[in-house]
Amino acid sequence: MGNNQDIEVLIALMAKLPGLGPRSARRAVLQLIKRRDILLAPLADALFNVAQSARECTNCGNIGTADICEICTNPKRAIAQICVVEDVADLWAMERSGVFKGRYHVLGGSLSALDGIGPDELRIPHLVNRTKGENITEVILALNATVDGQTTAHYIADQLEDQDISVTSLAQGVPIGGELDYLDDGTISAALNARKAV
Amino acid sequence: MGNNQDIEVLIALMAKLPGLGPRSARRAVLQLIKRRDILLAPLADALFNVAQSARECTNCGNIGTADICEICTNPKRAIAQICVVEDVADLWAMERSGVFKGRYHVLGGSLSALDGIGPDELRIPHLVNRTKGENITEVILALNATVDGQTTAHYIADQLEDQDISVTSLAQGVPIGGELDYLDDGTISAALNARKAV
Ligand SMILES: [Zn+2]
Ligand SMILES: [Zn+2]
Repeated sequence: MGNNQDIEVLIALMAKLPGLGPRSARRAVLQLIKRRDILLAPLADALFNVAQSARECTNCGNIGTADICEICTNPKRAIAQICVVEDVADLWAMERSGVFKGRYHVLGGSLSALDGIGPDELRIPHLVNRTKGENITEVILALNATVDGQTTAHYIADQLEDQDISVTSLAQGVPIGGELDYLDDGTISAALNARKAV
Repeated sequence: MGNNQDIEVLIALMAKLPGLGPRSARRAVLQLIKRRDILLAPLADALFNVAQSARECTNCGNIGTADICEICTNPKRAIAQICVVEDVADLWAMERSGVFKGRYHVLGGSLSALDGIGPDELRIPHLVNRTKGENITEVILALNATVDGQTTAHYIADQLEDQDISVTSLAQGVPIGGELDYLDDGTISAALNARKAV
């Protein structure tokens, strides 16, 4: 290629990131080199900082800088509500909405017979322990509206059945601003089945 | 967000890369943290290495590790042919095709009345100097098949008119409006082999 090896190594690593293939990795690396002072050097620093500081919260599975994350230690967050999500990305999406004021539990995926992922591969036993140890009144299942996500929701609801906890899930329906013509059939069916009086 | 600041900074920087928006930057950062040892740490190292070693070849404008790049110093490359490209990404695309065995000249863009880019903003005077100093017999214009690219090609051909140099351009086969970096290797090979006098 006429590149030097450092650049080849960087392109190969960048190409492993989700959303970047080999071509966009090359473009990104050229962009980085062109903007060395304002992009390349700061990015290298930021990666080192995150490599040293990032850790998984031992309580909820969120990613932060301490053994127990900022959400779990925040005294202003309601301790009686746990919102269960599949992934940290989902936790961040919930936080961006700014509506939920309780705490989280990140499962680390969803049950999948196909991929051989059972309850013990996820943090489901840990969730059940939390509901017993902490004074939880509601568990909100914010799982993906996929077959695996819904299977996982039902499994968790079963596990919590014998406790005095309200288990709820996000409503399904037409997204705000959504146009029917652009929605898939499953969403429309769900919205129709969950219809309510105006 | 419940993230720590290091992570926020990293997401913001990643979102500036071409091909990554805020959402894909968040996903990339989560992926990096999950694969800390095999992806995050190596990527931080690779960025530092490139930040320290990468430099622009003072002769041709390619990016390498030395003041004069590997292509310019390679004794096996034909010294009588210069292939003129707009950008380093185009040089890399030419190299991937493996057909061209001469040397390059990276302009750093194309002439654009709209963007106020004239010959002196590009490396065109430097190209003219090279054709006088080195024993060049052919200048191959491998510019994008855009209006600006073709304007630039004609301008360069005019500048070289009084020298005994064959000025050629890539054959039709480069689609109109096409950019070299997005072409497959076969198309680039075919266009180079069928090049003709301007
Ligand atoms: Zn936590
Ligand atoms: Zn060079």
